[in-house]
Amino acid sequence: MKTEIGCKNCLYPLPTTLVGANVKGKPNFITIAHVGIVNPQAITLGVNKIHYTNAGIKENGTFSVNIPSENLVKETDYCGLVSGKTIDKSKLFKVFYGKLETAPMIEECPVTMECKLIKTVDFPNHDLFIGEVVATYCDESVVKDGEVDMDKVQPILFIMHDHGYYKLGTQFAKAWSVGKELKEDEK
Amino acid sequence: MKTEIGCKNCLYPLPTTLVGANVKGKPNFITIAHVGIVNPQAITLGVNKIHYTNAGIKENGTFSVNIPSENLVKETDYCGLVSGKTIDKSKLFKVFYGKLETAPMIEECPVTMECKLIKTVDFPNHDLFIGEVVATYCDESVVKDGEVDMDKVQPILFIMHDHGYYKLGTQFAKAWSVGKELKEDEK
Repeated sequence: MKTEIGCKNCLYPLPTTLVGANVKGKPNFITIAHVGIVNPQAITLGVNKIHYTNAGIKENGTFSVNIPSENLVKETDYCGLVSGKTIDKSKLFKVFYGKLETAPMIEECPVTMECKLIKTVDFPNHDLFIGEVVATYCDESVVKDGEVDMDKVQPILFIMHDHGYYKLGTQFAKAWSVGKELKEDEK
Repeated sequence: MKTEIGCKNCLYPLPTTLVGANVKGKPNFITIAHVGIVNPQAITLGVNKIHYTNAGIKENGTFSVNIPSENLVKETDYCGLVSGKTIDKSKLFKVFYGKLETAPMIEECPVTMECKLIKTVDFPNHDLFIGEVVATYCDESVVKDGEVDMDKVQPILFIMHDHGYYKLGTQFAKAWSVGKELKEDEK
């Protein structure tokens, strides 16, 4: 028997990212964990319209999604505490640009995705930005067998309920595999 | 210095969910980890159009997002291995319905969100379903101080790169807090 607890969003944890955009020609970074995947090429960002970054994403049609490691937790949290409206965050990180030329990326993050804005879905208080990944950049140190090894990336997972930053735990099963046992039972 | 590795989607881990929908009047469940949050009330599901579930979501305009615990990993994976086109998954779980009446929910999952479809964004091979949470149901055993305690839920996190199911790790910092130290430095 279940208890109804209102309309609580429980789709956590989600990976904490630093979203980069040029605003008024200057790199700015904001902490966003309300992210998602559409398909292998596309991602979503749910960004409150009060933020400074939204105008930059719309103006350039580009942004970056940088995945910080646990050791960047202070800088990551800081980018969510202060607004680009009043604080210049352009010098917080070593910034580089890729093929889109206007999506500032963070050298200190082990993985970063350069994205082209393909659609904005308008909500009363939020923009849902849908971006296509046009290039992914990473440190050699986090690559294993040609794939990014998230264990090595040490992403910062976020849960709203307790405002907690969490570590990635251990792998305990394989997808498209552990359930095969039940498939055998069908026979 | 970063290496470019093509257009790899690295927005992982994401929580593995069992999405429920009535298809042809019968409950069906599919494993979806390509999910996201739009805002406190809304979530996204990126679902390949090959799946049986999509028609049910569109027909009823309702669906459920059930969060399975680690102990349901076999059943969870199984729902991603077999299609409702050929296998009847309606008896796999104890099913209950809420106020929307057409979104089948799973009693065995400690948390479930009953959702109303508010928009479908069309991609060549995927539907991006955007749903509003109209009610959340959970077991008393996972509630702490009026909030769902994800530590107790023990969600199954998914990473595509190695097809791994991962545990949630430990909390190591607090959001809107750990970065305040850098804010002090501004002064």
